Amino acid sequence: MPDRKIQIGVIGAGSCTKNQADAAFLIGREIARRDAVLVCGGLGGVMEAACRGAKDAGGITVGLLPTSRKGDANPYVDIIVVTNMGHARNAIIAHSSDVLIAVGGEYGTLSEIALSLKIGKPVISLENRWDIKDVITVPGPENAVETAFRSLQQ
Amino acid sequence: MPDRKIQIGVIGAGSCTKNQADAAFLIGREIARRDAVLVCGGLGGVMEAACRGAKDAGGITVGLLPTSRKGDANPYVDIIVVTNMGHARNAIIAHSSDVLIAVGGEYGTLSEIALSLKIGKPVISLENRWDIKDVITVPGPENAVETAFRSLQQ
Amino acid sequence: MPDRKIQIGVIGAGSCTKNQADAAFLIGREIARRDAVLVCGGLGGVMEAACRGAKDAGGITVGLLPTSRKGDANPYVDIIVVTNMGHARNAIIAHSSDVLIAVGGEYGTLSEIALSLKIGKPVISLENRWDIKDVITVPGPENAVETAFRSLQQ
Amino acid sequence: MPDRKIQIGVIGAGSCTKNQADAAFLIGREIARRDAVLVCGGLGGVMEAACRGAKDAGGITVGLLPTSRKGDANPYVDIIVVTNMGHARNAIIAHSSDVLIAVGGEYGTLSEIALSLKIGKPVISLENRWDIKDVITVPGPENAVETAFRSLQQ
Repeated sequence: MPDRKIQIGVIGAGSCTKNQADAAFLIGREIARRDAVLVCGGLGGVMEAACRGAKDAGGITVGLLPTSRKGDANPYVDIIVVTNMGHARNAIIAHSSDVLIAVGGEYGTLSEIALSLKIGKPVISLENRWDIKDVITVPGPENAVETAFRSLQQ
Repeated sequence: MPDRKIQIGVIGAGSCTKNQADAAFLIGREIARRDAVLVCGGLGGVMEAACRGAKDAGGITVGLLPTSRKGDANPYVDIIVVTNMGHARNAIIAHSSDVLIAVGGEYGTLSEIALSLKIGKPVISLENRWDIKDVITVPGPENAVETAFRSLQQ
Repeated sequence: MPDRKIQIGVIGAGSCTKNQADAAFLIGREIARRDAVLVCGGLGGVMEAACRGAKDAGGITVGLLPTSRKGDANPYVDIIVVTNMGHARNAIIAHSSDVLIAVGGEYGTLSEIALSLKIGKPVISLENRWDIKDVITVPGPENAVETAFRSLQQ
Repeated sequence: MPDRKIQIGVIGAGSCTKNQADAAFLIGREIARRDAVLVCGGLGGVMEAACRGAKDAGGITVGLLPTSRKGDANPYVDIIVVTNMGHARNAIIAHSSDVLIAVGGEYGTLSEIALSLKIGKPVISLENRWDIKDVITVPGPENAVETAFRSLQQ
């Protein structure tokens, strides 16, 4: 069996606060430092900050775009998957990630959390606005990636 | 412009309690009585009970199956849409419904609620387990369809 | 097991010649006369002519739209499925049809023919521009629906 | 604007002849040598041979699986995108590739060729079984990648 890299999804809104962007950057960087692949929705906000963090540490980033144009990807995406399926691509993000980390987020993110839990993927979150039982909440970005890796060993 | 029927999505788990099935049946029947089309995921539980209710009142039912086989549809589905896309079909349910009514449900239903709110569709629910701000909660199945129709007039 | 209606897909381009529209109309009408459901991509051209034919005979029409707006459906579509997935919805048309009838068509139609044959659905065509081995060619619209029904009995 | 790698799709059947596998290997290797990313359906046959070729030259390979399990990817896929949408993922392969190279192939490949042409992507092929006007035929694998790159400069 090939020794494949872990694929970690980072999910969150396309526009976000400075705090969320900072957290996403740290998470992306830590994902790359641990030699995992960053999977995300390819757009701005949390997705862009996480990709920027991963590239800062020399990692690989994958953006699963909802639209039909490669140019919609943020500048830190290496591999662009053009789904042209709108939010149906959220299911592909869930399926393609071994574990997911949510940073803030609105209803799009909530749908990704729900789809991920539905198919049995661990979901780590820096907050748990909707009080979803199976979400693993962590106090800060420092713990998120470590917790994500640990969730895969169970 | 054609005088098209309203399409109402009924979402909920593939296995459910007797109370939930009873509620879904009443909702499906009321949807048909008001001459709307019932849209659902085509499987058992809440989906089947709602379809059974709609057929009881002579309505039309549409089942958007996650699988690849028409035979997976419950016996009360008239029009079978075979998506073969697993939970990605939840986005199609959200897009195809003018308004959605949730009966109980687990993470699959939560994803449908989130996707529906994300794209601006009203969501009516008999409970609101996850305390989602934009979900319109109603006390019982009697009010659900009336509330759904009213949500479309705004 | 429920006594379900046969679902017949009619595929062809969104803009077409008068001859093709006439053929699609006759095919749609015959589908309805034989009490089958017409499945199509919901847009104009061949799809609209076939839907118009089916409604002329009191049938039921289903339009699987590639876009995100119900309003993009032609006026003769009864049930609107809003996939919002562009040409990926061609696979849903193939899966949802028991048999497909192609009227003219360009590359979009060719993709539907190929997907249908790939998953084992019979494809009837009034011409066979690409000389595809498994396509069943018929001389005119009069024979298409009869041939479609016969292909299902094998 | 970021200096992104070209993404080249290699399409063909999941089981293939030795000749086709040899051609796919050479094509995959040349794609990697020219620093492009190889995009494919992630399975065996032509897809696996192309990925093996790309890895032989130290390239990056992306597999867009039709199924729901990462383990279905061939051992030479680096980035696994789990679509869980069957042949609807063919549209994602077309959208995600700047240009596509077909090696042999059956109806699945034909659907990818048609979808690619529909959305305006150049398609290079070592043969042209179906005599499709817009497919660019090349005599051998040596010319395929060079022709693919040239098709992007127009």
